Amino acid sequence: MSKLRIAEIFGPTIQGEGALIGEPTVFVRSGGCDYRCTWCDSMHAVDPVHRHEWAAMTTDAVWGEVSRLSGGGPLIVTLSGGNPAIQDFGPLIRRGKRVGYRFACETQGSLAKLWFSELDTLVLSPKPPSSEETVDWVAFDACLEAAKGCGKVVMKIVIFDDLDYGWARVVAETYPDLPLFLQPGNPDVDPDVAVDPQQVADRLEWLVGKVIEDRWYTARVLPQLHVLLWGNKRGV
Amino acid sequence: MSKLRIAEIFGPTIQGEGALIGEPTVFVRSGGCDYRCTWCDSMHAVDPVHRHEWAAMTTDAVWGEVSRLSGGGPLIVTLSGGNPAIQDFGPLIRRGKRVGYRFACETQGSLAKLWFSELDTLVLSPKPPSSEETVDWVAFDACLEAAKGCGKVVMKIVIFDDLDYGWARVVAETYPDLPLFLQPGNPDVDPDVAVDPQQVADRLEWLVGKVIEDRWYTARVLPQLHVLLWGNKRGV
Repeated sequence: MSKLRIAEIFGPTIQGEGALIGEPTVFVRSGGCDYRCTWCDSMHAVDPVHRHEWAAMTTDAVWGEVSRLSGGGPLIVTLSGGNPAIQDFGPLIRRGKRVGYRFACETQGSLAKLWFSELDTLVLSPKPPSSEETVDWVAFDACLEAAKGCGKVVMKIVIFDDLDYGWARVVAETYPDLPLFLQPGNPDVDPDVAVDPQQVADRLEWLVGKVIEDRWYTARVLPQLHVLLWGNKRGV
Repeated sequence: MSKLRIAEIFGPTIQGEGALIGEPTVFVRSGGCDYRCTWCDSMHAVDPVHRHEWAAMTTDAVWGEVSRLSGGGPLIVTLSGGNPAIQDFGPLIRRGKRVGYRFACETQGSLAKLWFSELDTLVLSPKPPSSEETVDWVAFDACLEAAKGCGKVVMKIVIFDDLDYGWARVVAETYPDLPLFLQPGNPDVDPDVAVDPQQVADRLEWLVGKVIEDRWYTARVLPQLHVLLWGNKRGV
């Protein structure tokens, strides 16, 4: 049985962003990514230089750790990364769902997996121009197709600047049926440097101002609560 | 035709708290309340001393102002107060829904109204001990009954201290089927005094810590984003 490359498993804590904001969850952060966003806040799960830090774990071992951390009580497990769609989380999802756990997955939408359809929530987060990545929309559409049967599919777009914002508007017009969450970008990703809550507030205010000015009523604007609470500290 | 007593109509801005957090909305804040919570952050819509400031408006006039503020684009209108359940918002809801608007209402659950069933979202927020109010659970249950047909009913509880927290746990056990949002209390309600975002973060961290320690996975914990952004300034 092939093993999963896992950068970290931590929690329970609250989901800090997006559709499930505020909800208690355990994070399973997989190692490895097909993207290299300039402002990535999880390079420890992306850059192969950290590869030796990623544990090779069986599904049973991952499940055992999720179960231990959550104390047996079912909650929602968040698969993140890196890009979790590189790997096969189907067996983990089926294992957890048998005992009442739910599963969310966050991915950029570059790789479609059959197991998307077994999720409770799939968060597709296409990366805007500031990432210096280029979205493959054919792959993105394949993710949507693969997700049929999934409880809920939403889109999350991180916005660093006006260019990202304009890009997000076009994307939103292309996918009017996907609930959309906008999130101010976080340029301060050093885990050892404290984040000023005022800066989190300022960036949120900027983005809220733009959305309201444009009367863009179908977008929801949310901050990263975990950055507000803990800066970029890992494992919370 | 009887008139509505309206303390303020403002927006569009984002909903700062609860189930619709981050969503663009126009607030219709009605004047008058059957409660006097010690920490009320909207006394200008509660205390009869402000009664002369509340406009007497026809449904058409309220609708006209909502429509003007939102620029004609449909969005979700949030009925708050005071206690909006004192008045008859049924005609306003029907007026707006005809042109695609949606309606949410926030009320403590002390007065049941037939128009609850026409809402898209009803937020019932029973007040914890720190409010020095006493919940009438028979009335609360009548609200739930009246809300049948409403798109979604959720519960929001503000938590100031350990006593409130313990109370919320009991309430949650009594209403296991109501999605529950917990919100740290805000003791600084003076609109002229700036709020320190660090304090918002600290109060959120305290409540998150308690929920996680107790493995209370069915509660969602959210801050008041508007307090983070604008302190207690009115009209935003």
